[in-house]
Amino acid sequence: MNQTLEHIKNRFSCRSFTGEMPAEEKIQAIAEAAIQSPSAMNRQRWQVIVARDPALIAEIEAEGMRVIAAMPDKSTYERIQSRGGKLFYNAPCVIFVPIEPTELTGAALDCGIVCQNIALAAQAVGLASCICGLAGLAFAEDKAGQFKEKLRFPAGYEFGAAVLIGAAKTTAAPHEPDSGKITYIG
Amino acid sequence: MNQTLEHIKNRFSCRSFTGEMPAEEKIQAIAEAAIQSPSAMNRQRWQVIVARDPALIAEIEAEGMRVIAAMPDKSTYERIQSRGGKLFYNAPCVIFVPIEPTELTGAALDCGIVCQNIALAAQAVGLASCICGLAGLAFAEDKAGQFKEKLRFPAGYEFGAAVLIGAAKTTAAPHEPDSGKITYIG
Repeated sequence: MNQTLEHIKNRFSCRSFTGEMPAEEKIQAIAEAAIQSPSAMNRQRWQVIVARDPALIAEIEAEGMRVIAAMPDKSTYERIQSRGGKLFYNAPCVIFVPIEPTELTGAALDCGIVCQNIALAAQAVGLASCICGLAGLAFAEDKAGQFKEKLRFPAGYEFGAAVLIGAAKTTAAPHEPDSGKITYIG
Repeated sequence: MNQTLEHIKNRFSCRSFTGEMPAEEKIQAIAEAAIQSPSAMNRQRWQVIVARDPALIAEIEAEGMRVIAAMPDKSTYERIQSRGGKLFYNAPCVIFVPIEPTELTGAALDCGIVCQNIALAAQAVGLASCICGLAGLAFAEDKAGQFKEKLRFPAGYEFGAAVLIGAAKTTAAPHEPDSGKITYIG
């Protein structure tokens, strides 16, 4: 069996990490895979910011949870509470992928490409991952400026996505693929 | 060496395909990898439309080129002309990934995730690929409705991206990774 197809198939969104910091060479392999991502006209309108500072990660998580708790629709807050009340699920490493928001839709597409390279590279080195769009809520209000500064976002860049990385405490099955999502024409 | 990391590293944006139709099982493996993509809240707001009808592909390509040729800024048109004047580079198979455009930025991120799974699955089965955002221009004007119908876009879905798939006639080196795109914090 093709190892790459296996890694694509077995990747799951991890929602419980041990918290143990992965080996440096694994993190570097993931970051290097990220910058090998294709992008529109090879513009690379993203940055791959590998955050491993537990205090900073906790601060961003707390702000994200504060914003989510204040949302009129409580469903997201309740879903996270039901999973343990943590936005980052105890991940020791969070890779932020801010984007240059010119022509935002295209930049978001490029950001998604980077996120999947990160998730699959993590799977390839035996780590778990979770692409976390909700982390963007920490960048939606007053603390956005200080977080961007502490994470050294390039000037003018905005939050795109974050990918949680670490060892899985609890593994989960990947989602069941829905073959109805494939259409063959011709 | 880890095969998945190798496939990530060696993937390149192919701009010259032989035109020969890949084996059915390879196309199916790619489509199945696509629907294994993670998505926000597992909503899967995309469809994976595998188009292999040469007449339809040619029609979409011709419309895309017509729109590009009419753009006031001629740089895109000239770039494509310098590469042989073909938007789809003779690819025998084009996988369209339309998206449900509610909250467009998030849907585009999810679409990018699918595109990279497609590109890496293609690499894994020995095929070349190119993620082609410009194909969207064929869906920007009068012919959008008929193309959506012929490709059986789900109701309300809009063009997200297209991925060209086939055997490479000419291989190219992947882009040189820019290590300045990685920032380590903590």
